[in-house]
Amino acid sequence: MKQSLGPKSLGFPAPVVLVGSYDRHGTPNIMTAAWVGICCSSPPCVSVALRRATSTYQNISDRKGFTINTPGVRHLKQVDYAGVVSGAHENKFLATGLTPVHSDLVDAPYVDECPLVLECKLVQSLELGLHTQFVGEVIDIKADPGILDSADIPDLKKLGPILYAPGMRVYFALGESLGKAHVVGRK
Amino acid sequence: MKQSLGPKSLGFPAPVVLVGSYDRHGTPNIMTAAWVGICCSSPPCVSVALRRATSTYQNISDRKGFTINTPGVRHLKQVDYAGVVSGAHENKFLATGLTPVHSDLVDAPYVDECPLVLECKLVQSLELGLHTQFVGEVIDIKADPGILDSADIPDLKKLGPILYAPGMRVYFALGESLGKAHVVGRK
Repeated sequence: MKQSLGPKSLGFPAPVVLVGSYDRHGTPNIMTAAWVGICCSSPPCVSVALRRATSTYQNISDRKGFTINTPGVRHLKQVDYAGVVSGAHENKFLATGLTPVHSDLVDAPYVDECPLVLECKLVQSLELGLHTQFVGEVIDIKADPGILDSADIPDLKKLGPILYAPGMRVYFALGESLGKAHVVGRK
Repeated sequence: MKQSLGPKSLGFPAPVVLVGSYDRHGTPNIMTAAWVGICCSSPPCVSVALRRATSTYQNISDRKGFTINTPGVRHLKQVDYAGVVSGAHENKFLATGLTPVHSDLVDAPYVDECPLVLECKLVQSLELGLHTQFVGEVIDIKADPGILDSADIPDLKKLGPILYAPGMRVYFALGESLGKAHVVGRK
């Protein structure tokens, strides 16, 4: 017999990313986010949901561009810090020691230390309540060669991403491989 | 020096869920999805992106309700199978042996074997291209008591969810705990 928990924003592990953006003065900012997902394959799109109170919300609204940067577990402390502090009060690139790189494709900086970077052009904004969901079309992906397999596909095991468990408020690593999709179920 | 991979729909591990819905005859259907995410905290909302060609797309459009069911790794074979076969050709509840339970709150069935279930009312549809993103407000969450901690919060480590690595097309388990959010970065 299942137990009712009421309406809550949890249910599955959420990927942890850094959202890169510029403010009106061109100062680069990062913000940690987990309310993120892939939402279209063609054109490739990703979504990120932000509170209106964040600097990143204003930056994306103004600049129409952002980056989604996937950090590895070795940057966990910086990642957690960038989710606590506001860009309105602190330059989080300086505070974390992470390095902003200007994207040539969208009006946003990416994080050099993150092995996998999505450069996104804002295509939709959806007001949902406390959060606004921004949908970005992925214009390009940039990856560190060290995380690519022989077919130039990012190997998430080499990257070592961070997952977030909503409700628990605990970070997790990625675990062991369970097999190929569309293969394991055919047996 | 980062390598350009072009625009692709990948970037981070995506949670694997089963989407529950009814067709026009009231037949329950499930579909495996990973283009999913939390997109608002208040009201709690989740999004799932589906191709128009799927039975689930039509079902959610008609019924304005769906469930997001988080399976554990012990159901990996059924989960993968439900992502390959179309509900138009097969009753996937019967084929997988999973059990549909009628939700009292939304017009959709949930999967009894999944330890964590979100009952969702359709609130937005966003046409993005190949995929349409459905946003559902979470009306209730139902959980197996065995995955709850002492504060009735779902413990994802007990649940043992499945992650999907886009591009690689490989499933992964959840790994080890890395610490509490908003704590590890304060050190």
